[in-house]
Amino acid sequence: MYDYDLVVTNGVCVTAADIAAYDVGIKDGKIALLAPAGSLKGAKTKQLIDAEGGYVMPGGIDCHVHLQEPSMFGKGYSADSFETGTRSAIAGGNTTIVAFAPQQKNLDSVLTALENTHKLAKGNCYCDYGFHLLVSNPCAKALSEFKQLVTTEGVTSLKIYMTYAALQLRDNEILSVLLAARQNHILTMVHAENGDVLDWLTDQLEAQGKFAPKYHSNSRPPVLESEATNRAIAFSSLIANTPILLVHVSDPAAALRIRQAQTTGQPIFAETCPQYLFLTRDDLDKPGFEGAKCVCSPPPRNAEDQLKIWTGLKNGTFSVLSSDHCPFRFEDSERGKKTCITPEHPVGKFKYIPNGLPGIETRMPLAFSANKLALTKFVEVSSTNAAKLYGLYPRKGSLIPGVSDADLVVWYPDGKLGDLEVTNSMLHHDVDYTPYEGRGIRNWPRYTILRGKVVWDRDGEGIVGGKGYGQFVKRSQSILNGIWEEVDEEGPFDLERL
Amino acid sequence: MYDYDLVVTNGVCVTAADIAAYDVGIKDGKIALLAPAGSLKGAKTKQLIDAEGGYVMPGGIDCHVHLQEPSMFGKGYSADSFETGTRSAIAGGNTTIVAFAPQQKNLDSVLTALENTHKLAKGNCYCDYGFHLLVSNPCAKALSEFKQLVTTEGVTSLKIYMTYAALQLRDNEILSVLLAARQNHILTMVHAENGDVLDWLTDQLEAQGKFAPKYHSNSRPPVLESEATNRAIAFSSLIANTPILLVHVSDPAAALRIRQAQTTGQPIFAETCPQYLFLTRDDLDKPGFEGAKCVCSPPPRNAEDQLKIWTGLKNGTFSVLSSDHCPFRFEDSERGKKTCITPEHPVGKFKYIPNGLPGIETRMPLAFSANKLALTKFVEVSSTNAAKLYGLYPRKGSLIPGVSDADLVVWYPDGKLGDLEVTNSMLHHDVDYTPYEGRGIRNWPRYTILRGKVVWDRDGEGIVGGKGYGQFVKRSQSILNGIWEEVDEEGPFDLERL
Amino acid sequence: MYDYDLVVTNGVCVTAADIAAYDVGIKDGKIALLAPAGSLKGAKTKQLIDAEGGYVMPGGIDCHVHLQEPSMFGKGYSADSFETGTRSAIAGGNTTIVAFAPQQKNLDSVLTALENTHKLAKGNCYCDYGFHLLVSNPCAKALSEFKQLVTTEGVTSLKIYMTYAALQLRDNEILSVLLAARQNHILTMVHAENGDVLDWLTDQLEAQGKFAPKYHSNSRPPVLESEATNRAIAFSSLIANTPILLVHVSDPAAALRIRQAQTTGQPIFAETCPQYLFLTRDDLDKPGFEGAKCVCSPPPRNAEDQLKIWTGLKNGTFSVLSSDHCPFRFEDSERGKKTCITPEHPVGKFKYIPNGLPGIETRMPLAFSANKLALTKFVEVSSTNAAKLYGLYPRKGSLIPGVSDADLVVWYPDGKLGDLEVTNSMLHHDVDYTPYEGRGIRNWPRYTILRGKVVWDRDGEGIVGGKGYGQFVKRSQSILNGIWEEVDEEGPFDLERL
Amino acid sequence: MYDYDLVVTNGVCVTAADIAAYDVGIKDGKIALLAPAGSLKGAKTKQLIDAEGGYVMPGGIDCHVHLQEPSMFGKGYSADSFETGTRSAIAGGNTTIVAFAPQQKNLDSVLTALENTHKLAKGNCYCDYGFHLLVSNPCAKALSEFKQLVTTEGVTSLKIYMTYAALQLRDNEILSVLLAARQNHILTMVHAENGDVLDWLTDQLEAQGKFAPKYHSNSRPPVLESEATNRAIAFSSLIANTPILLVHVSDPAAALRIRQAQTTGQPIFAETCPQYLFLTRDDLDKPGFEGAKCVCSPPPRNAEDQLKIWTGLKNGTFSVLSSDHCPFRFEDSERGKKTCITPEHPVGKFKYIPNGLPGIETRMPLAFSANKLALTKFVEVSSTNAAKLYGLYPRKGSLIPGVSDADLVVWYPDGKLGDLEVTNSMLHHDVDYTPYEGRGIRNWPRYTILRGKVVWDRDGEGIVGGKGYGQFVKRSQSILNGIWEEVDEEGPFDLERL
Repeated sequence: MYDYDLVVTNGVCVTAADIAAYDVGIKDGKIALLAPAGSLKGAKTKQLIDAEGGYVMPGGIDCHVHLQEPSMFGKGYSADSFETGTRSAIAGGNTTIVAFAPQQKNLDSVLTALENTHKLAKGNCYCDYGFHLLVSNPCAKALSEFKQLVTTEGVTSLKIYMTYAALQLRDNEILSVLLAARQNHILTMVHAENGDVLDWLTDQLEAQGKFAPKYHSNSRPPVLESEATNRAIAFSSLIANTPILLVHVSDPAAALRIRQAQTTGQPIFAETCPQYLFLTRDDLDKPGFEGAKCVCSPPPRNAEDQLKIWTGLKNGTFSVLSSDHCPFRFEDSERGKKTCITPEHPVGKFKYIPNGLPGIETRMPLAFSANKLALTKFVEVSSTNAAKLYGLYPRKGSLIPGVSDADLVVWYPDGKLGDLEVTNSMLHHDVDYTPYEGRGIRNWPRYTILRGKVVWDRDGEGIVGGKGYGQFVKRSQSILNGIWEEVDEEGPFDLERL
Repeated sequence: MYDYDLVVTNGVCVTAADIAAYDVGIKDGKIALLAPAGSLKGAKTKQLIDAEGGYVMPGGIDCHVHLQEPSMFGKGYSADSFETGTRSAIAGGNTTIVAFAPQQKNLDSVLTALENTHKLAKGNCYCDYGFHLLVSNPCAKALSEFKQLVTTEGVTSLKIYMTYAALQLRDNEILSVLLAARQNHILTMVHAENGDVLDWLTDQLEAQGKFAPKYHSNSRPPVLESEATNRAIAFSSLIANTPILLVHVSDPAAALRIRQAQTTGQPIFAETCPQYLFLTRDDLDKPGFEGAKCVCSPPPRNAEDQLKIWTGLKNGTFSVLSSDHCPFRFEDSERGKKTCITPEHPVGKFKYIPNGLPGIETRMPLAFSANKLALTKFVEVSSTNAAKLYGLYPRKGSLIPGVSDADLVVWYPDGKLGDLEVTNSMLHHDVDYTPYEGRGIRNWPRYTILRGKVVWDRDGEGIVGGKGYGQFVKRSQSILNGIWEEVDEEGPFDLERL
Repeated sequence: MYDYDLVVTNGVCVTAADIAAYDVGIKDGKIALLAPAGSLKGAKTKQLIDAEGGYVMPGGIDCHVHLQEPSMFGKGYSADSFETGTRSAIAGGNTTIVAFAPQQKNLDSVLTALENTHKLAKGNCYCDYGFHLLVSNPCAKALSEFKQLVTTEGVTSLKIYMTYAALQLRDNEILSVLLAARQNHILTMVHAENGDVLDWLTDQLEAQGKFAPKYHSNSRPPVLESEATNRAIAFSSLIANTPILLVHVSDPAAALRIRQAQTTGQPIFAETCPQYLFLTRDDLDKPGFEGAKCVCSPPPRNAEDQLKIWTGLKNGTFSVLSSDHCPFRFEDSERGKKTCITPEHPVGKFKYIPNGLPGIETRMPLAFSANKLALTKFVEVSSTNAAKLYGLYPRKGSLIPGVSDADLVVWYPDGKLGDLEVTNSMLHHDVDYTPYEGRGIRNWPRYTILRGKVVWDRDGEGIVGGKGYGQFVKRSQSILNGIWEEVDEEGPFDLERL
Repeated sequence: MYDYDLVVTNGVCVTAADIAAYDVGIKDGKIALLAPAGSLKGAKTKQLIDAEGGYVMPGGIDCHVHLQEPSMFGKGYSADSFETGTRSAIAGGNTTIVAFAPQQKNLDSVLTALENTHKLAKGNCYCDYGFHLLVSNPCAKALSEFKQLVTTEGVTSLKIYMTYAALQLRDNEILSVLLAARQNHILTMVHAENGDVLDWLTDQLEAQGKFAPKYHSNSRPPVLESEATNRAIAFSSLIANTPILLVHVSDPAAALRIRQAQTTGQPIFAETCPQYLFLTRDDLDKPGFEGAKCVCSPPPRNAEDQLKIWTGLKNGTFSVLSSDHCPFRFEDSERGKKTCITPEHPVGKFKYIPNGLPGIETRMPLAFSANKLALTKFVEVSSTNAAKLYGLYPRKGSLIPGVSDADLVVWYPDGKLGDLEVTNSMLHHDVDYTPYEGRGIRNWPRYTILRGKVVWDRDGEGIVGGKGYGQFVKRSQSILNGIWEEVDEEGPFDLERL
C-alpha cells in the first residue's frame, strides 16, 4: 500500500509568500503533506518526481480565456475549442482556466448563455475550468438571474464591454449591471475602451485610405483606454464603491488612474497580459501582412509603456497576469482569419481583422523567462491572486495540505533546458501562428500536475492528461483583499448619500 | 460744438490689468480719451457723469444666456424673451450678451437655426448681443455650414451637450463637432454631465419614491460632472488639442481636472457661475416647494465646494464668470413652471422641473459685493476675458481710446448705497422670483452706458435705453491666451500621430 | 521515541499568503511538517497543543524596538531592559525583535557601538533578537566599518535621524550614509521629521507660555513629517535609487508622498505603528498630566488621519507594522519620567517629556482585535514582511517545513476569551502605564512558541520561557520586493548620470 | 507753450490686458493722455516719436539684478556697477530695476546693509531703481529693523538663500525671517537649492577628478531644486501661508510643485529667467573653457525642460520673467573671473567659477523675439507683474494717465530691423562676453523713455540718458493677486492652529 500517489522531491517550492526547498506529498488529488527537503525521497509512493532543484509552484490559473466564442463580425468563431484551448493550457503550466459564457444581445437570459457554454466545454477539457458570464443584454430578466448564478451555478464573476457594437453596454446599462452585481457579490470585469470613439476613428482612418493592420493601433490610441477606465472607476464609486476589475490594461495612464483609486482605498482591481509586456506597437507594422498577427485590443503600446506596466506588476497595481487568449487563425476562411486581403484591399482592412491573440500556452514561460518579477510575485499574479479574485481559493492557487488540489507546475532546473526559442510548432493550440515566434526563452513547464495526476510531461510524451479529465469548478465569491467585506448588500441602493 | 458726447469724471477706472483714477471722454459711441483724474471736468461735453469716486469699468459681458429657448420637455419656452432678458441685463451692468441659437435635433442646418434666432432678437434688444450656435444635430450639412458661420455670420463659438435627451450628442458626434470646429477656429463650449447616468439615477430615485425637488441634486452628483469633464478633455487632446470651454463648472474635482490640463499646456478653458458661488445644495431642500427655485444643472454643491470654486476664479482656472441665465417662471403653466405639483405628486416631480435660474441682472452685483476677487480680476472674468474668449475684443471688454465701444458700468461709491437686499421686485426680468431673494448686497450698477449712451440710470428713471438700441455684434475668432495660435487648421486631420 | 517535539493541531494556520486549517509538526526547533487538519492528532509527540480552531501564525516580529537606550536628554535610559522588553514581547505574541545599537555622537566606531549593545543583550533575552545600527556619527571610520557589519556581524540595517540634536544628521551626512549603505546592501531606516523646524517651533511655543504636554503636538505638525519624508525620498533618488524605509509614518501626506514614489518604482518602504492607528491628538490633551503618557514622535494625529493610515496598510503603502516600543516611565526620576512637573511648570514642559511609548506587548493584540486587516495581511505586516525586509527570512516569518524556526503564536478561538480590557497590570514590561489602558480587545496570544518551545502560556503560568533562551540572529541582506536586485554596487558612484 | 513734452504716435500700445493702436501724450514725466490713434499727431509737443506701427509698452522692470555685489568666494565683485548695469538696462528696454542690498553674515543690521548699497547706487544710475534686502544674518536686531524697512525706507521685499555657505540660512532661520516678513508685509524671495547636498556632490565630483565646467551641472541636479522648493513651500504653509516667491525656477518638477500650491490657493509666486528658456545643459559642455560662460545657479536644464518652463510662463505659474543679471567677467583676475585655469587644473575647477550670467540687456529682446508669449503676457511678466509684485504699481508698469510715470519701451516695426545677431560688442554692460553670442533676434528696443525722457535711442546716439538720472524708488507693499489681503498681521503667531 502506498502513503502517497505522488511525491515531488528535490524542488524549490514557491507560493505567493514563500520560497524554499521542501518536499510535497500528494494523495487522492490533494496536497497531502509538506515536509523537509529530501524527507519524502524514500516514501512509499506510486510515483516520484525528482525536480532536480527546479521550481515547483501552484499550477497556473489563467482567468481570461476566450474559447469557441462567436466572432464580433457575425460569423466564425475564435480558433480554439475547449478541447484545443485547454490542451494548450496544460502544456503551458496551467491547471485551471476561467473562460467566458457569452450572452448574445438577442438573448434575455444569462442562465441560458451559461448552459450553452457548459455544453461546449463538458467532457472536452484537459484542465479544470470555470466561467465568467459575458453580459451583453442586461435586461431585467438577465439581472434577476444573477442570484442563481452565484447560489447554484458557481459563477461569481461577469464581464462587460465598453466597446464592440455586438457587446457594448451604454453607461446606464453598465450601472444596472454594477448594481445587480454588487447585490449578489459578483465581481465585474470591464473591457475599458471607448467604443463610440474608436468607431469614429476607424471611419476617419478609412476615409483617409488608411486600411493597413498597423492602423488598428491608430484607431485605439491610449487615451481611449484611460478615458474609459476613468469612467468605469467613476461608476464604481457611484454604486457605493462596488468592486470592478479592469481587464487587459495596456496604457500607463490608465494604470495610473487605477493606482490613484487604490491609493484612496477604492476596490479597483486590474489585470494585464503578456502582449503588453512583450509586444509593442512596432509589431503591428511588420512587413507585409505580418502585423495582423499582433492585432488585439487594446493594441500593444510602446517600449517605454511596457516598462511602466512591469512596474505596475511589481508594485501591486495589477493583481493578475492573464493571457486574454482569444486566437483567430491567420488563414482560415471559415472561422475568421487575420489576413483579410481582397483585391481591393491588398493590405486588408484592419477593421475586419479579428481582435485577439493566442497566448494561453506562452503566458507562464514568457513571464517566468523575463526574470523581472520576484518568484513569489510571479506565483501571486499568475495563480494565487487569480484563485482569490475569482473564488477558487484555497482549493486552487496554493499548496495547502489537505485543502489544496494537487495542481502543480514543475519547471526545469536553471540552465537545464538550454536556449529555447518559441515556435508555433511546439505549441498545442489550434492556431496557425504565435505572435512570439522566435522569441528566446529560458525555461518551460516540465511537468504539469492536475489533481495529483501528471497531465503534461515535456520530456516524456507531452500531453498525457486525457481530454475530459478537466472538471468544471464552482466558484465562491471573491476574497482578494477582503473585497466584499465592507460591502453591505442588504437593502436598496442608498440614493440619499449621493 | 462739443468735444465729447459724454465725460465720466471722478471715477476709479478698472480694467483687467489696471486700477486707477482717471477721466474718460466719450464721443460717437467710442472711448475717445483717457485723461488724468479731474482733467475733463470742465470739458465741452453734452453730458457729464460725476462718478463721485465710484468704480468705472468696461460693461459686463454675459456670455452664457438662454433667451426664448424651447424647453427640453417639448413644450414651453424659457421665461425671458430677448426684450426682457436684455432689459434685465443692462440693469445689472451688462452691455453685451451672447445668447444661444438652438438647432433642434430635427433640423439639419445650423444656418437656419441662426436665422430663426435672429428673427427673435432683431429690434428687441436693450444691449448688444451675439449668438453661440447650439448644435444638437451635427449632420454633414450642419458641419459644412460651419465655415459660413465664421466667415459671414460672425458666429465663432458653439455649444454642445453631453446630457439632456433632446440635445445630447454621442461621443462620436462630439468628435465630429470638435474636428469641424477646429478646422474653422470655432470655440466649442461643453455642458459636461453624463446624461445616460443621470437618467438612470433619476429612474432609480423615482423607483424609490424620491420625487421632491431636492432629489434633483441626487440625480446629478458631482462625479457625473468630473467624469464628463475628463471625457471632454480627452476628446480635446484626441483632436490635436482643439480648444474647448467647460461651461458652468460646479464641482471642484472637475475644476481640478481642468487645472491639470492647463498645467500641461492644453487649451482647456472653463467658466463658472454665481449659483456655484452663492447657492448650496441646502437651497434645494428648502421647505415646501421653494427648493424648486434653485433647480439648475449642474446643481449647487456644498459650502466647501464654493470655496474651491472661488479659489479657481482667483488662480485662473476659470477664465469667465457668466450667469447661465436660463429662467423658468415659478408659476406659469404656459411657458413651463418650476412648480409642477399634481395631486399625485404634492411635492412635484423633480424630473419635470425646468432646469435653470434667472441671474443676468444679479451676476455683477453679487460677485462685486462678495469682495473676494481683486477688482482687476473681477473685470477680467466678468468682461474682458469674455470679450477675448468670444472674439468681441478689443471693441468690447476694455477702455481703449478710439477702439473700444464706450460700454461702461459705473458703480456707487463705497457705502453710498447703504445696505441693500436683493428682491425680485427690483429686477427687470420676466421671472416671478429670484433665487437670491433677501440676500444682502453692498453695491449695484448706478449707470450702464452702451456705446456712449446711458441706458440704465438707477437713481433716475431706471431703464432709459430703448428697446432695439442693442445691436447684433459679429464676432471674430477667439484670442484668449493665444488660443488658436498653435493650431494649424490646414490639411486633413493627422491620424498618423495617434 | 517521538516523531515530534510538539504538534499543533486543530488550528487555522495563517501565513502571508494562505489561510487554512492544517496541522503543524515541530521537531528540533524547526517546522517539521505541515499536514492535513487533524492528521497529526495522534502523532507521537512530546507535547500536543489543541488550538481549538484558533488561529496559528508565524510569531510576531517587532523590528522597531528601543531597549536600554540612553535618553536624548543626556541622562537616564529608556525604561525597558533587554530582559523586561523581550519578556513583554513574548507575552504579546512576538518571537523575534530587532532593537537598536546606538552609536553616540562622540563615538567614531559603529562596531564598538554594536559590541556595547551585545553586552547588554547577551543572556538576557526571552525572544530572539537582532540589531539595527543607529548611526549618529557617520565619520569615515564608521562608514568603513559597514562592510564588516554585513559580512561578519549579521547587521544589515541601520537607522538615521533627521531630528533630535543628539542624533540628527545634516543632509550631507545623510547622503554619505546612504552611499555607504548602498555599497554594502544595508537598508537605511529614516526618522523623518525636520529637527531644525521643530526646535524653532518649540522655542516659539515656550515664548508664548505654551508648555503643556499637548503642545508637543503643535511643535511637530504633520508638515514637518511630510517635508522630511519628501527630502529623504529625494536623497534616495539622488543616490541612484538606494532603498530606504520611512519609519513610524503618521501623516497621510507623508504616506501619499511615499506611495507616489512606489508608484513610479522607487524602492521606498514604509512602516507605521499602533499609536497612529489607535491614538489621536486628543489623547495628548487629557486632563492633568495624563496627556504626557501619549507623547511620542511623531505625535498621534487625528481620527481622519487614522483611517488613511489603515488604508495605507491595506493597499501596501506600508510594508510593516512595528511597535516603536520606546517607553519611559511615568514616574521614575532616575531613568527619566514622563511627568516633569516643577513648581515653576505645574503642567510640565513638553520639551522635557521623553518621547516614546511602550507597545511591544500590545502591538499584535490591538491590531488583531481591530479586525480591519485581512488575516494574511496581518501576518504579512506583523511578521513575514519584517523577516523579508530585515534579512531574517525564511528562517523567521513563515511556516516552511525544514526551513523555518518553529516560531508561532496561537490565538484563542473567536469569542473564547470574552471581552477583555487592556490594563497595565496584565503587561510584562517594566513601565508604570500603558497608553491603551482600558481599551477593549477581543483576543490575545494564547501561546507563544519560540524554536519549538512554548515560552508564553497565557492560561498556564504565563511566562514560561527562560531569560537567556532568546538568541542573537545574524541577518542576511533584505529581500523584500527584490529590493537589491536592480542595485549594482560595483564601482564608484556614477556622478555622470546626475 | 506746449501741451505735451512728448507724444508717441502711430504705435500699437500693449499693456498687461490690452493691445491696440492709440497715441500717448506725455507731460511732466507722467503719462498725460491716451487718445485715438493719430489724434495727437499734430499736438503741440516738444518732441514727437513716430512709432511707425511698432509696439509701445511700459518700460521693462527687471526685479532680479545683482550689481557690485561681493563674490561668494570672499574676494572680488560681480562685474557690473550700478553705473554700467543700469546703462545696460536701458539699452535693453528697462526703465526700472530692483537690485540687492546684501547683508554680510558678520553684519547684524539690515539698515546698515541698505545704507551701504545706497552709497554705491546714488548718483550713478541710468534707470530708476529699488532694493531688495538680501538677508544672511537674521539676528534679532536685523529682524527688528524690518518695520523700518517698510515704513520709512521703501523696501518691501527681501531675499534669502538655501545654498552658498556665505549666505545660506538654516531652516529655523528661514522661519524666523518668514515670520518677521509676514508681520511687516514684506515679500520673501527664496533661492531654493539644497546647499548641503550640493557641497557634498561637489566633494564627490572632485574626489573622482571631475573638475570641468560642465560638472557644475552635475553638482546641482534638478532634484536639489525641487526638494528645496518643496521645503520652502512647506515653510510658507507653516507660517500661516505667508507669501513667498521662488526665484529663477529652472526645474519643471519644482514648477509643478509651485503650481500645486497655487492650485490650492497658497500664496506661492515664482519667477523664471531667460537662461532657462534659451540655454541648455549642453551649453556648459562647450569645447575648451567656453562652458564656463554659462555657469549659473541653478544651471540651465535640457531642451524638454525649456518647453515646460515656457508653458509655465503661459499658464501663469510664473508671475515674472527676470534676468537674474549677476555677471562675472570671463577674464578679470581682480573682480573674479569665469576662467579659473591653473597648471594643476587646465580645465579649471567648476567650484571656483563665479555663478551668474549677464542678461539685463538681453532679457527683453530675447523673450520678445521668441514669439512664444502673447504680447499682453509679455508685458505682464516683464513689467506689470513686477511692478505689482514689488509695490511699484501703478507708478510703474502701466500706462495710466496722470498716474503712471512715462516709462516706455518702443520697439521697431516688425521686419524693420532685419535679421540681427546678438554680439557682446553691441551690449552696454561691463562684461567681456554674453552667453547669447551669435543668437538670432528679430527686434530690439528702439527707444527707451524714462519719466518722459528718451534715455535710449538706438538709431541715434544710443545711450542718451544721463548717469544719475535714475532715481531711487520707495516701494509699497506687494499687491499682486491680493497677496496680503487675507493676511492678518496683528497679534502673535497663532501656534494653536498647528
